[in-house]
Amino acid sequence: MKRIAILGSTGSIGRSTLCVVESFPDRFQVVTLAAGRNLDLAFEQAKRWRPRVISVAAESHANNLRVRLNDSGITDIEITHGATGTVRVATHPEADFVVSAIVGVAGLEATYEAVRAGKSVGLANKECLVAAGELITAEARRQGKPLLPIDSEHNAVHQCLRGGKMNEVRRIWLTASGGPFLNTPKSKFADITVEQALNHPTWKMGNRITIDSATLMNKGFEVIEACRLFNLPPEQAAVIVHPQSTVHSLVEYVDGSILAQLSVTDMRLPILYALTYPDRIPSDLNFSLSDLRHLDFCPPDMEKFPCLRLAYEAAAAGGGKTVALNAADEVAVSAFLDGNIRFMDIPVLIEEVVSETSAGKMESIKEVLRVDQQARASARERVARLAGVPVAARQN
Amino acid sequence: MKRIAILGSTGSIGRSTLCVVESFPDRFQVVTLAAGRNLDLAFEQAKRWRPRVISVAAESHANNLRVRLNDSGITDIEITHGATGTVRVATHPEADFVVSAIVGVAGLEATYEAVRAGKSVGLANKECLVAAGELITAEARRQGKPLLPIDSEHNAVHQCLRGGKMNEVRRIWLTASGGPFLNTPKSKFADITVEQALNHPTWKMGNRITIDSATLMNKGFEVIEACRLFNLPPEQAAVIVHPQSTVHSLVEYVDGSILAQLSVTDMRLPILYALTYPDRIPSDLNFSLSDLRHLDFCPPDMEKFPCLRLAYEAAAAGGGKTVALNAADEVAVSAFLDGNIRFMDIPVLIEEVVSETSAGKMESIKEVLRVDQQARASARERVARLAGVPVAARQN
Repeated sequence: MKRIAILGSTGSIGRSTLCVVESFPDRFQVVTLAAGRNLDLAFEQAKRWRPRVISVAAESHANNLRVRLNDSGITDIEITHGATGTVRVATHPEADFVVSAIVGVAGLEATYEAVRAGKSVGLANKECLVAAGELITAEARRQGKPLLPIDSEHNAVHQCLRGGKMNEVRRIWLTASGGPFLNTPKSKFADITVEQALNHPTWKMGNRITIDSATLMNKGFEVIEACRLFNLPPEQAAVIVHPQSTVHSLVEYVDGSILAQLSVTDMRLPILYALTYPDRIPSDLNFSLSDLRHLDFCPPDMEKFPCLRLAYEAAAAGGGKTVALNAADEVAVSAFLDGNIRFMDIPVLIEEVVSETSAGKMESIKEVLRVDQQARASARERVARLAGVPVAARQN
Repeated sequence: MKRIAILGSTGSIGRSTLCVVESFPDRFQVVTLAAGRNLDLAFEQAKRWRPRVISVAAESHANNLRVRLNDSGITDIEITHGATGTVRVATHPEADFVVSAIVGVAGLEATYEAVRAGKSVGLANKECLVAAGELITAEARRQGKPLLPIDSEHNAVHQCLRGGKMNEVRRIWLTASGGPFLNTPKSKFADITVEQALNHPTWKMGNRITIDSATLMNKGFEVIEACRLFNLPPEQAAVIVHPQSTVHSLVEYVDGSILAQLSVTDMRLPILYALTYPDRIPSDLNFSLSDLRHLDFCPPDMEKFPCLRLAYEAAAAGGGKTVALNAADEVAVSAFLDGNIRFMDIPVLIEEVVSETSAGKMESIKEVLRVDQQARASARERVARLAGVPVAARQN
């Protein structure tokens, strides 16, 4: 029986993790949950899973939840809140495996503490590797515990890496759907609307990651994550566009063999893989190879998607640069979604913020958060400046 | 330094093996060679590689070769011949690794003796698994030594199997190019000429294997080989048509993940893999994923290609049936190449011979050879009968 802590239980990955746990009641048990602001769902999850501890966003949420659980006759759950609560959930002595799925830098500290407490960790939080990857992977190595990727690309790489040793890897290939603008000429990029950018061809995801997929910044983040997770330089982490999102990634070995992983596009599969590794257990997540018709591949257009280039540059520089890349992107995407900047402004704004940030190595989560705040402030200023100028007057 | 014996050194796989050895002189050394009737090449190979022993087809060849080597001042090579000579090459005490690449049943005994002598064996000879697979794999298990597949499909499966345990495999998928008649309607099969059948779209191979690819019998043999090599029932060895021959095969795991192996279509790659396993070493056999455009897949048409169905039936029955399948196919293909029977007669003739052969378990290589001879004789009789009747008078 594997005892599981879920950071971000009310989010998409958290809910998928609970689906997996529900399918295998003999194997997995939920011991702690960190929910967010969705109190109705937090209440349902607490009732259904009866964790030892549940953490919510703020004290008021905790009080509200306590009353509702008491009214249902449930009094044996420890209810906590905020950053301290999340750390409590992540480091609970009964937890064997921590699923890190809180979106944004909010998940950083708790995930780092889980690793420090010697837990096996399944990583679905991008920031853990993009912003704090050097710290977290170093600590996981020190602890001798695995960091198992819970996103389809890195999970695929992890599977393909079983076909050889790390020093036998020539490069990994992360597949990219290409997003909604794969075939849009660059000349039309100035007119891209929010609605067009939110229309992702293969995955249904949250708004920020959908825009990040449209700019290919999401793939850029994945390059950085892969470099940290698998300890590879950026030049060994290539990207290839594959619109069907059926091959989730590939590993090319020095002898010339390439291994690829294919499956349905369902996050329960990488979650199940991470939870059961090094074993595999039967699931109903079947992929019908007989229904497969064709798979297309093409190299990414770095000129059309400058975010990918920015990510490679930040990956090579490391330290503060990748923190700023993530922070500036979050602000820029949010400004685009709010109609304050254009699609093409996103990479321009990010490049400016990253270029003014030092590449210095991050020595602590606190330092990561400080650089993150600085970059966000700078990005917000630039958004304000851009938003104040009429669109027609701006340069491309 | 791995010391290598090559059975079938003058054939296509034998020559590719020597190319690989030549590329890595620090890793591999040729200790013994079993050549065939191509005396000029046997002489060149003996001069170039200076093996401890070289074996040729017949005593007259051995005498001829001895004179030529003596004339070149080479007197330190033991020259032998025939079946005994091949066994001597396969079981030489200095050989660590035996490449079994003699075409046809001629390679059976020597390969079996190599396994019995505790050698690691790289298998490129189809008959070793199709006709004598139960015997040879049982002996390899007893010896605790690997049987490494040297053909692109099983080699790909071997690589993909590193991603999990055998009891975690749902099924393997062998890819088939589909041969030259993939898109030919069945109504045109009566008119297929030898020239058309020899025109394979992706691989350049010998005549028999090219025809076997056109009938899909080659894929059927590979199903049988896979079942024996990986100890799987036929229903766990599926076939999928993939005209580009870029994905060499796939393994589907119980959790729903599929691993695939891709590479250039060059036999040196599976040879190198077998020779270096469990390591991988850098080669120049690069596959450019950036040049990859698209990959197509479709299920095989069992009705159009009855040979595939016959192979599944023989795999399920086992024993003498697979011996007869191979023997009858060899005779039928040869008769088709000689213009004595039509393309569509091939499966009809094979089905008749297999149906009259008992499925009894083969207890020795001698028994395999006896059943093989019987099946060939029966197949030849049927060819004679068919060839004696004018084509126009025959039934479809």
